[in-house]
Amino acid sequence: MRVDGIPMRTIWPTDRRTVGIIDQTRLPFEFAKVELKTLGDVTHAIKSMLVRGAPLIGATAAYGVAIAISADPSDASLKRAIEALAQTRPTATNLRWALERSEREIGSLSPPARAEAAWKMAATICEEDVAINRAIGQYGLELIRAAGKPGRSVNILTHCNAGWLATVDFGTALAPVYAAHDSGIPVHVWVDETRPRNQGASLTAWELAKHGVPHTVIVDNVGGHLMQHGMVDMCIVGTDRTTANGDVANKIGTYLKALAAHDNDVPFYVALPSPSIDWNLADGIAEIPIEQRDETEVTRIAGRTCEGRIETVCLTPAGSPAANYAFDVTPARLVTALITERGICPASRDGLRSLFPERTAVA
Amino acid sequence: MRVDGIPMRTIWPTDRRTVGIIDQTRLPFEFAKVELKTLGDVTHAIKSMLVRGAPLIGATAAYGVAIAISADPSDASLKRAIEALAQTRPTATNLRWALERSEREIGSLSPPARAEAAWKMAATICEEDVAINRAIGQYGLELIRAAGKPGRSVNILTHCNAGWLATVDFGTALAPVYAAHDSGIPVHVWVDETRPRNQGASLTAWELAKHGVPHTVIVDNVGGHLMQHGMVDMCIVGTDRTTANGDVANKIGTYLKALAAHDNDVPFYVALPSPSIDWNLADGIAEIPIEQRDETEVTRIAGRTCEGRIETVCLTPAGSPAANYAFDVTPARLVTALITERGICPASRDGLRSLFPERTAVA
Repeated sequence: MRVDGIPMRTIWPTDRRTVGIIDQTRLPFEFAKVELKTLGDVTHAIKSMLVRGAPLIGATAAYGVAIAISADPSDASLKRAIEALAQTRPTATNLRWALERSEREIGSLSPPARAEAAWKMAATICEEDVAINRAIGQYGLELIRAAGKPGRSVNILTHCNAGWLATVDFGTALAPVYAAHDSGIPVHVWVDETRPRNQGASLTAWELAKHGVPHTVIVDNVGGHLMQHGMVDMCIVGTDRTTANGDVANKIGTYLKALAAHDNDVPFYVALPSPSIDWNLADGIAEIPIEQRDETEVTRIAGRTCEGRIETVCLTPAGSPAANYAFDVTPARLVTALITERGICPASRDGLRSLFPERTAVA
Repeated sequence: MRVDGIPMRTIWPTDRRTVGIIDQTRLPFEFAKVELKTLGDVTHAIKSMLVRGAPLIGATAAYGVAIAISADPSDASLKRAIEALAQTRPTATNLRWALERSEREIGSLSPPARAEAAWKMAATICEEDVAINRAIGQYGLELIRAAGKPGRSVNILTHCNAGWLATVDFGTALAPVYAAHDSGIPVHVWVDETRPRNQGASLTAWELAKHGVPHTVIVDNVGGHLMQHGMVDMCIVGTDRTTANGDVANKIGTYLKALAAHDNDVPFYVALPSPSIDWNLADGIAEIPIEQRDETEVTRIAGRTCEGRIETVCLTPAGSPAANYAFDVTPARLVTALITERGICPASRDGLRSLFPERTAVA
């Protein structure tokens, strides 16, 4: 998407066989590009979350393999690179998938042929992600178009960041928003700040502002009130993992917004690239383990002081513990429809099967 | 309640005819008492929110009249004091009510008799508040006792601060919690941080910690997940205004927790002193106007740096506007019961009439 009018992606190869990324840890306060030159640079970028979002992590890992193989194309070097990258974010599905693909496609070649192939494979992974998201955007665009009313914007609520910053380009939940905006349909996005890590207030707000999409930041508590008063036409969120039944794991708090949407007859859509579907799971609430993260993400927060320094401050009394559940599961019954790269379907086993007949869902 | 073992209230007269309060703007980072000696001290304390919470504001205003009348018992002085206090928080119902009572009860006396009567009236207003909250605590205690299971704590989720810091003592939503804890029933409180002003993370957590009640701070997004997994036995919240139908206006986000409680068969209780019932209103969502506050409450936050300084930091990109709705309305159908000083009743016109037969609710 665009940053102050200039088209950008979240990751790009340079002609010096290095990779450029945006340091997302410094957003929204500073827009800094970083050049990754070594395998160590890449593992640091993933581990320290300079890049985040499942599709972008996968793409970055693929470029990490290419950088390592350009320096040393031996079997030992490939193995070392894959092991180092696998340890950066052990639970990221796309990371494992990209590394398995590297092992298979690059490892089978003779060492002199590997570097070229690794750079090409990383570029292909990026293009595949972009194609998926572009398709999600086009299908979602029609939902937004249908919700349009003359003389007013379509109000869309989103939670967390499932925008272009989480992918290579376009994003998932925000792909339909960008497609609608770029087609001239007036849209306005209610941006949940998304405590505790505030990906909405920092990343979603930043990317919408830079692309020029009208939006308003709200605390996570507000969405229900807005829906009661007809101020939300639809919700669109992303997902970390969707079961074969259509249950949706996403950032903590998504379930509360789905309840409010259901209570107020507001459509609740989940945008999902098909690789995030876990065909082996049925009941999301019972079967998806929910990560508990460090309590300091709740008790402390970083922001910019009026002098422009980034400062972390503590929000809670010294004697009060905190708990930090990172995701929740929204049952399929609360999801109006799933927006995939193959089209829109009900959040159900039959709905998903209709679009992905080649997948055999579990009984 | 107790602060590190020492019994305290939020406001107390001294024998020098001044009034002591806790500077709540410095919580949870500093426990500072402040002595109010002049009418100006009192208006400042209310306006700058050193004291907050409807019942405490009313009690503080009554003491403000007593301080002013002790300095000058004339009609002009009384009028001046009432006008100055009325302007501190124009929308606070208890403030207006305390000032009208002062005008009526103190204004009717001869000037020499006024000071004594004003101090006595302020003390009476405090005792009335304490008696109401103690009764709410005792009724609510039985609900908690009934939810108890051998060998485990009763898990109670609360939103915002409706504890003793918001009243003269005991609180409303937290009165049952303190009563249960002090009776030896093991309780554990999930404390919603309550963005944007974080009254949960700062005030509720602080007062529970100081009284020794086990608790855990969570972001507002977490409650639904906890309820899906059987980790919440009941919710208890306070209210700013309840309609004759039982619709409940409370801090923004309350509605989302009520939806989650309903979806998971978790009882959702509202603790309310009867003065907060608005007998002239029926449909809360249509009829209760929702205050919109300054967007900087959303875009900025104050906390303690690691060096111990209180610092305000900005959380959002420069180009992103924010909206700040302060309250929402939870429809009566989502409220399991109301806990009042006269007992527990269904959240309905008939329920409220059964406890308050002398009130004629609107048709």
